[in-house]
Amino acid sequence: MHLVTYRSTIESAARLGVIDGDLVVDVEKIGAKAARSLPAAMLDFIDLGPAAIAELRAALDDHRDHWPAGTAVPLANVKLLAPIPRPRKNIFGIGLNYVEHVAESARTLDTAKDLPKQPVIFSKPPTSVIGPGEAIEHNANITQQLDWEVELAVVMGRTARRVSEAEALSFVFGYSVLIDISARDNRRAGQWIYSKGQDTYAPFGPCIVTADALGDPHDLGLWLTVNGHTKQRSNTRHMLFKIPTLIADISAAITLEPGDIIATGTPEGVGAGRTPQEWLWPGDVVEAGVDGIGRIRHPVVAA
Amino acid sequence: MHLVTYRSTIESAARLGVIDGDLVVDVEKIGAKAARSLPAAMLDFIDLGPAAIAELRAALDDHRDHWPAGTAVPLANVKLLAPIPRPRKNIFGIGLNYVEHVAESARTLDTAKDLPKQPVIFSKPPTSVIGPGEAIEHNANITQQLDWEVELAVVMGRTARRVSEAEALSFVFGYSVLIDISARDNRRAGQWIYSKGQDTYAPFGPCIVTADALGDPHDLGLWLTVNGHTKQRSNTRHMLFKIPTLIADISAAITLEPGDIIATGTPEGVGAGRTPQEWLWPGDVVEAGVDGIGRIRHPVVAA
Repeated sequence: MHLVTYRSTIESAARLGVIDGDLVVDVEKIGAKAARSLPAAMLDFIDLGPAAIAELRAALDDHRDHWPAGTAVPLANVKLLAPIPRPRKNIFGIGLNYVEHVAESARTLDTAKDLPKQPVIFSKPPTSVIGPGEAIEHNANITQQLDWEVELAVVMGRTARRVSEAEALSFVFGYSVLIDISARDNRRAGQWIYSKGQDTYAPFGPCIVTADALGDPHDLGLWLTVNGHTKQRSNTRHMLFKIPTLIADISAAITLEPGDIIATGTPEGVGAGRTPQEWLWPGDVVEAGVDGIGRIRHPVVAA
Repeated sequence: MHLVTYRSTIESAARLGVIDGDLVVDVEKIGAKAARSLPAAMLDFIDLGPAAIAELRAALDDHRDHWPAGTAVPLANVKLLAPIPRPRKNIFGIGLNYVEHVAESARTLDTAKDLPKQPVIFSKPPTSVIGPGEAIEHNANITQQLDWEVELAVVMGRTARRVSEAEALSFVFGYSVLIDISARDNRRAGQWIYSKGQDTYAPFGPCIVTADALGDPHDLGLWLTVNGHTKQRSNTRHMLFKIPTLIADISAAITLEPGDIIATGTPEGVGAGRTPQEWLWPGDVVEAGVDGIGRIRHPVVAA
């Protein structure tokens, strides 16, 4: 299932929906029609665990192809928000997790040439999240090196504390697309939160595809364009530390909770790694996608 | 005012209280007696802004010295929790923010000898927070270099986005004590979240002292002992980047929200900086305090 957080009008509250072709079916409303209690917010849905997915599937099966009045709206008529508009803790970002990106970073940034022996983890605050179509802010007072990174985002489904690699994927709720925006000239003493954690630096969406619906998360094409020109194109099979390793590693020290997000790193093709280097400027449009999930498109605007 | 989050019995819900001598006065309940609507949780109280402090003060004045039945309990009979048991985003930590600590870190860790030119910012997830008396976990599978750092914690009172140094302190709700526990052998490619963000690595409390009640936050003694032996003793006047600079700097890029916490860095005397180096082990007891706020005491236990 492709789950979204959406508003049907600008004024209305954010609601949980599920995509059916070119329609958004409201999860709480279709649940009510099927006498099944389902929530109106993504985090509440994730908190309910696998039972919620089964309930929703049953509710959809009860009504498929003849959605009761008021339960479905055309996708074209709604505004999608970030699937989790407000994560409960900072997003976990993984640095240097694709082999070719390690090489390009070592050439042009201050990172090591050797492959990392353990995942390189940083964080992006909830305040950095924006939804599909929202603007990435370019603050010329702070940066002249605004860069892009397309990533597969993993959304946790259950509390994970010291889980093994073997069981790790069973803790995943689903997958999404996240662009890890960085101000390359804002790194400080090696710490990346300032350069990667700024407001609007985590475009996220357009949906969460539940784990059961996506198949192998390590065989997905991912790409990014700037103004229509392809800058990144790779496949998640090239991840250095695969998702089970990331979950086992983080959860060995830090409890992962339902709705927590891990951005799994970016392949080669970032602006810092190009010759000459390229950066984002107001007026640019960044678009990125992961096969089987969807795409997000964001203008860059002057802050 | 010294505000606390407390439970009166193990089973009961966390509630907001205010210290009056050796009593805890329940904020919501005393508000009700004074026909003033006051909340039962710290974050809800902070969200209400300065008006809530004025309302609470008025409610207390209505009843001081003759607390109505059920509104006050002996401090000795309650369990204090972290004042904000669940922050809304990762705690902002400031590295290398006391001059002597920069020197000791350069001697024994991989940090630079020069003073940082800008604040060094890292983060600790909400899941790292523990309340007064709770155990710091020593996980021997992960670390043999568990270290201490006493810090003054700043709690934000209002949303701060691009605020100037001149106005920064007006955005502060209050102050508390935070111990920034680190697994020194868990730093990765310069990123500190893994070494500093583990579960139980942010002992926090015992209260939040409102800004109006504390006086100058840059003239406070702070100290830390291990098993009763003093390891750190300094004064917040030795901070390299003062609080207004930290707030202006972070808020230039990342929106600070009510209840957000900035741990302002630690003075010299950490275990890594001693000769020979000293680390925390199960059975140790760490106690730390900041003058005018209070002290917190935490056993170290095997995970």
